[in-house]
Amino acid sequence: MVDVRRIDQEIRDFYYKRGTIVSEELIDAILYSIDGGGKRIRPILLLQIVEGFGVELQQAHYQVAAALEMIHTGSLIHDDLPAMDNDDYRRGRLTNHKKFDEATAILAGDSLFLDAFGLLSLADLPNQVLLDLVQLMSLASGTFGMVGGQMLDMLGEGKKLEIFDLINIHSNKTGRLLTFPFHAAGIITQQPSSVVSSLWQAGMLIGHAFQVRDDILDVTADFDELGKTPQKDLAAEKATYPSLLGLEESKFIVQDSLNKAVAIFKELEEHNGFKGQDVYQLIESLRING
Amino acid sequence: MVDVRRIDQEIRDFYYKRGTIVSEELIDAILYSIDGGGKRIRPILLLQIVEGFGVELQQAHYQVAAALEMIHTGSLIHDDLPAMDNDDYRRGRLTNHKKFDEATAILAGDSLFLDAFGLLSLADLPNQVLLDLVQLMSLASGTFGMVGGQMLDMLGEGKKLEIFDLINIHSNKTGRLLTFPFHAAGIITQQPSSVVSSLWQAGMLIGHAFQVRDDILDVTADFDELGKTPQKDLAAEKATYPSLLGLEESKFIVQDSLNKAVAIFKELEEHNGFKGQDVYQLIESLRING
Repeated sequence: MVDVRRIDQEIRDFYYKRGTIVSEELIDAILYSIDGGGKRIRPILLLQIVEGFGVELQQAHYQVAAALEMIHTGSLIHDDLPAMDNDDYRRGRLTNHKKFDEATAILAGDSLFLDAFGLLSLADLPNQVLLDLVQLMSLASGTFGMVGGQMLDMLGEGKKLEIFDLINIHSNKTGRLLTFPFHAAGIITQQPSSVVSSLWQAGMLIGHAFQVRDDILDVTADFDELGKTPQKDLAAEKATYPSLLGLEESKFIVQDSLNKAVAIFKELEEHNGFKGQDVYQLIESLRING
Repeated sequence: MVDVRRIDQEIRDFYYKRGTIVSEELIDAILYSIDGGGKRIRPILLLQIVEGFGVELQQAHYQVAAALEMIHTGSLIHDDLPAMDNDDYRRGRLTNHKKFDEATAILAGDSLFLDAFGLLSLADLPNQVLLDLVQLMSLASGTFGMVGGQMLDMLGEGKKLEIFDLINIHSNKTGRLLTFPFHAAGIITQQPSSVVSSLWQAGMLIGHAFQVRDDILDVTADFDELGKTPQKDLAAEKATYPSLLGLEESKFIVQDSLNKAVAIFKELEEHNGFKGQDVYQLIESLRING
């Protein structure tokens, strides 16, 4: 069973047991956003899939999962900055630059990006596995992934986007880092490339569902449910899946993508000894009711 | 001989030969700051020291050097942001957020931090060497190094600092990343730990000299020499080596630190077959005349 608290514990241990603390204030700002109570969906997926292949979870796996969450958290801190999305709230709490200040938030995000690779490199896994993970995490998060997608997203603001533009933005902005846990779990458990490829496909589908779902919730949920100001996309006249495809079609995409991801895992159960009970439960929790 | 243009070429190749470009605009913003014409002192030192140990320079060494320059450049872009030092010029050209906009500059810096580890992991060096470099680069640049020091620097603004505060700030803010080329060259050429330790000491001394020199130049140089607004420290009433120790004592520290670094390299020449002609030339270029 995945112990969610242990993901956070690995992050805290990295900051408090690595040697001389340079700035307590910086670590406080970092941990404020780590403690923000995200659902930890990326690290949990990684750990559940590793476990699904019959590998007993070790500290090393939690460290990889923690590194992934650090990159994700760093990107949220920078996304919220005044020059970016200018959000005052995230998950019902003040955003990092509102709680501290802009400079601190910039540095906290920078640190999370840079520190994540240090934590990853400490994990007790075969050298080749670690190097593959370093490369994968870098390509998924930087210019060729998440940050590239954020840039596209920003450039698309106020422009009339087609559905293919939207897919291109989101498959990079959120998709690449959501695909990482699937791909990484295949590398960690040293699966043959056909299995890694299946995992990668499942990751893409779930990443896609996740983003469409996010756009739907922005329209249908209120502040308490979202933990942030709802209908921001609408206010910003931002192209979203519901605005381009309608709410019903968007809901269909979420269900259909999740169904296809489940089908891939069922195949892995049948042919590769994968046991996916926890993964299915997490996938079901992403469905849109009604 | 170190081919300086090849450092830049490795960075360009990383961005243009790695596969699908997500955002051309993001790469343009990144390369604008890479092309800003820094002296490349960190990567050159790394390559010169590797060569000094009789190792012929390969693409892999240039890739490590390029990754280091990417981290350095990312930190300069973020340092210049309005919420940080708020600089309009860097090396005589508009800073990244002035040439583009703030959001682009934040993303360009983020990308450089995240991409650097991807480029590093591609270098054709033994796995253990690569992993040691990943860890060293992360710890030198994130919370336990450069970013931690930037945070201290920011917190110290407007406060009365003692000389030991200043040394603590700078040994992290600039010292750790200036020590990296020395330490990394020892790892790459697989020196015994006593030699790595000597290299590390030389790096600390040169890093210290470099920072004190920077503070001196802020007082004595003009815009053309600096490529940015001079006497900013004075205007910001920032604690500097000249303001705390006086100009003469500061100049003495630069010369003395550089002399001690040269002495360490002379020892390595005598006992470890090191040939340091190029390194000495670079060290001499850091001296303050008059």
